[in-house]
Amino acid sequence: MQVYLDNATTTRTADEVIEAMLPFFNEKYGLPSSEFGHSMGIDASDALEQSRKTIANYLNVKPNEIVFTSGETESNNLAVLGVARAKGKGHIITTSIERLSILNTCRHLETKGFEITYLPVDKHGLVSPDDLQSAIRDDTILVSVQHANPEIGTVQDIKAIGEICGEHNILFHTDASSSFGLEDLPMEHIDLATFTSHLIHGPKGIASLFVREDITIKPIFFGSNNEFGIRPGFENIPGIVGFAKAVTLLSKKYVEKMRKQRDHIINELTAIPHTYLNGHPEKRLCNNVNVSFSFIEGESVVLHLDMRGIATSTGSACSSPNLKGSYVLEAVGQDPEVSHGSLRLTLSRYTTDREIEYALKHIKDVVSKLREMSPFKDEDTFRKMAKEEHK
Amino acid sequence: MQVYLDNATTTRTADEVIEAMLPFFNEKYGLPSSEFGHSMGIDASDALEQSRKTIANYLNVKPNEIVFTSGETESNNLAVLGVARAKGKGHIITTSIERLSILNTCRHLETKGFEITYLPVDKHGLVSPDDLQSAIRDDTILVSVQHANPEIGTVQDIKAIGEICGEHNILFHTDASSSFGLEDLPMEHIDLATFTSHLIHGPKGIASLFVREDITIKPIFFGSNNEFGIRPGFENIPGIVGFAKAVTLLSKKYVEKMRKQRDHIINELTAIPHTYLNGHPEKRLCNNVNVSFSFIEGESVVLHLDMRGIATSTGSACSSPNLKGSYVLEAVGQDPEVSHGSLRLTLSRYTTDREIEYALKHIKDVVSKLREMSPFKDEDTFRKMAKEEHK
Repeated sequence: MQVYLDNATTTRTADEVIEAMLPFFNEKYGLPSSEFGHSMGIDASDALEQSRKTIANYLNVKPNEIVFTSGETESNNLAVLGVARAKGKGHIITTSIERLSILNTCRHLETKGFEITYLPVDKHGLVSPDDLQSAIRDDTILVSVQHANPEIGTVQDIKAIGEICGEHNILFHTDASSSFGLEDLPMEHIDLATFTSHLIHGPKGIASLFVREDITIKPIFFGSNNEFGIRPGFENIPGIVGFAKAVTLLSKKYVEKMRKQRDHIINELTAIPHTYLNGHPEKRLCNNVNVSFSFIEGESVVLHLDMRGIATSTGSACSSPNLKGSYVLEAVGQDPEVSHGSLRLTLSRYTTDREIEYALKHIKDVVSKLREMSPFKDEDTFRKMAKEEHK
Repeated sequence: MQVYLDNATTTRTADEVIEAMLPFFNEKYGLPSSEFGHSMGIDASDALEQSRKTIANYLNVKPNEIVFTSGETESNNLAVLGVARAKGKGHIITTSIERLSILNTCRHLETKGFEITYLPVDKHGLVSPDDLQSAIRDDTILVSVQHANPEIGTVQDIKAIGEICGEHNILFHTDASSSFGLEDLPMEHIDLATFTSHLIHGPKGIASLFVREDITIKPIFFGSNNEFGIRPGFENIPGIVGFAKAVTLLSKKYVEKMRKQRDHIINELTAIPHTYLNGHPEKRLCNNVNVSFSFIEGESVVLHLDMRGIATSTGSACSSPNLKGSYVLEAVGQDPEVSHGSLRLTLSRYTTDREIEYALKHIKDVVSKLREMSPFKDEDTFRKMAKEEHK
C-alpha cells in the first residue's frame, strides 16, 4: 500500500487537470502574442483570459488583479520586492515563520537599506495583532503575513491583521499558498496575495499573485509587456489552464472530510504517551497534523514509514538538505530536541480512511519500536541528554 | 488543411515529450526537497539530476553549469541582471536586435547607473566583430549577443565574438533560445547561454541558463537554496523532464530537411516580383523565411493565410499588441513601409513538403489578390505614399 501524506510539500496533479492541459501541449499550442496573427494565437489568448477569469471569480476579485507567475517563490518575491522597489525605501513587517521566499527576500532588502521587523509568534504559531499594531511605524510600507503555515498548519487572523493595515493605510500581502482552497480568505482586507497551483492538485511551475488594481508594484524582471506590465515572458498556457481547472475542482466537501480525518489522526497520535501536538489546537489547516514524539528522531520515523510505503515529513535537522532544524518549530519555542522528533502528516482530498488506518497502525508500531531502542525513558533525562548531543 | 509555420514563436510539444512528462504529474509527483524523507522525493531528485545531465551532455558542459528557470525571459534576465548585480557597476555591450528580455533589462540597468552600448547591425542583421572590438572599454563587464535572431533568422559569428570577449577577459552571454538544436554553438567561447524548451518541441514554462562554473552571478529572486543558490523555488519536475526529453529528440537530420525546405520557399517567394528577403542570405537559421512584399500589408497577408488554415507571422505594426512595427526590421535599415509587408514563415521538424506546397500556393494567391486591390503598382510611388501614410 502506498500512502502519500506529504500534501503540504506538493500534491498529485488531478486527472481532470491533466486532461484539461493536454490539448494545449500538442493541439492548441500557440501563444497569446500571436492573437493578431492566427487562430492558434486566439485560442491561446482565450485560454489565458478564461483561466484568469476562473481564478478571479473563485476569489471574488477582478480578472485584471490576477498576475500569473512561475510559482509561489516568484509570487512572494514579486509582492515584497515589487512593493519595496515601487516605494524605494521604508520599513516592512513580516513574521518569523514565513516561507523562505519571504524571509530571504526581506533579508536581501535589509542589505538595500530597508528595515524589517520579524514579528514573533506564540507557542501555537499565532501572530498577535497587538504586536503588529505596536510594530507599525510612520515609514512602514508593507506587512506580509502568511495565511497558514505549511509546517504546523496554524491559520492567522487575516481579517484582524488586514484591518490594522487598512487603518494605517499600509499595503498588506498574504502568502496564501498553503491555505488556498482549504480556508476562506477575506480578500476585502488584502492588497496582495500569493496562490499556487501545485498545492491544489494543479501542475507545478505556475502560480499567481493577486494585486489589487489600484496598487503599483515594480516588476522583478524585464521584457515584453505581458501580465499588465508586471510579469514579462511567454505565458505557460498549459500550466495556466491546468491551474484554473484545479481551482474549479476545489470544494468545501473535501475540507470537511479532511478536517474529520485530521482530528481522528490527532486524537490517535496524541494518545501515545510523550507525544505533543505542534501548531494551534483549533486554528489549523484542515489537512495538517504535526506532532512530536519524545525520545526518538523524526528522521527515523519518516524513513521507517517510507519503507512501509508511507510518505511523510519531519522538521528534524537530519532530514533537511542544510542539516538545520525547523526554524518554524524553533520560532514556536520548541526545544530543538523535541522538534527533532516531529512528524508532519498532510492530507489531500484523495486521502482515504483506509490509508489513514494503515498509516496510524504503522506510525504507532514504528514509534513503539524506536522507543524500545531509545536510551531515554523519561522526559527530563531525554531533554537534558538530547540538548547535550545537539550542541 | 492546417499548416503551422510560426515555429519561431512557439512549437508543438512532441508526443514523446508529453509521454515522458505524464508520470511526473500523477504518479511520481514528489519534489526533490523531500529526498531525505521519502521515495517520491528521491524519484523527483533523480529525475531532476538526470534531466540536468541530459541537457549538459548535449551541450558538452558540466551538469552543475545548467540552471533551470521558468523561460527564456527569466534566463536572459538572470544572465544580465545576475552579472550586473554581481559586478555592481560597469558597461555592458549588446545589440539593437536582441529579444526584449535583453533590451528592456539593459534599459532598466541604465536607470541604475550602468552604461549600455547597443551595437548596430548591417542590412542582413549581422553584428560586426570590429564594432564590438571598438565598443569595449576598461569597465566593460558583459557582452550579450544573441546566437540567432528569431525574426529574420540571422546567425551571428559567436566564435569571433566570444574570442574577442575572451581576449579582453569580459563575460560573454548569448541568447541561444532561437537556435537551440538548429545551429551548433561553440560553448568553449561562451560564459553564459540561454536555452529554452518551448522552441524545441518541449513544454512551455521551462528553460535553462548555462553558467560556466567559475562564474559568480547574483540571483534575481530569493528563497530556498535550489539550483546552486542561483534560482530558488520548487522545481517544475514535469517541465524539466519534458525539456530534457525534447533535447534527446534533437537531430541533425531535421536540420538538413528544414534547410532544403527553407531554400525552396525562399526561391519560390523571391521569384514573385517586388519581393525581398529579410535577414542574411546564407547565415540564417535553417527554419527561417522572412520576406517583404511591396504594395501590400503583412497583416492582410497573415490574416488571409489564417483563413486558409496557415499560421504565419509578420513584423507589421498592426499585428503587434503595441501597434509598433518590428524594431528588428527597423534595425536592419528597412523602410517602415516595406517592413509592413513582411511575412515570416518558420518551419519545424514536423513541417511536410505537402504543407509547404499548400502554403506556397496560397501565399502566391493571397499576394496576387491583395496586390490587385492595392493602389500601388510601382516601388517609388508605393514607398513615397506609404511613408506619408505611416507618418
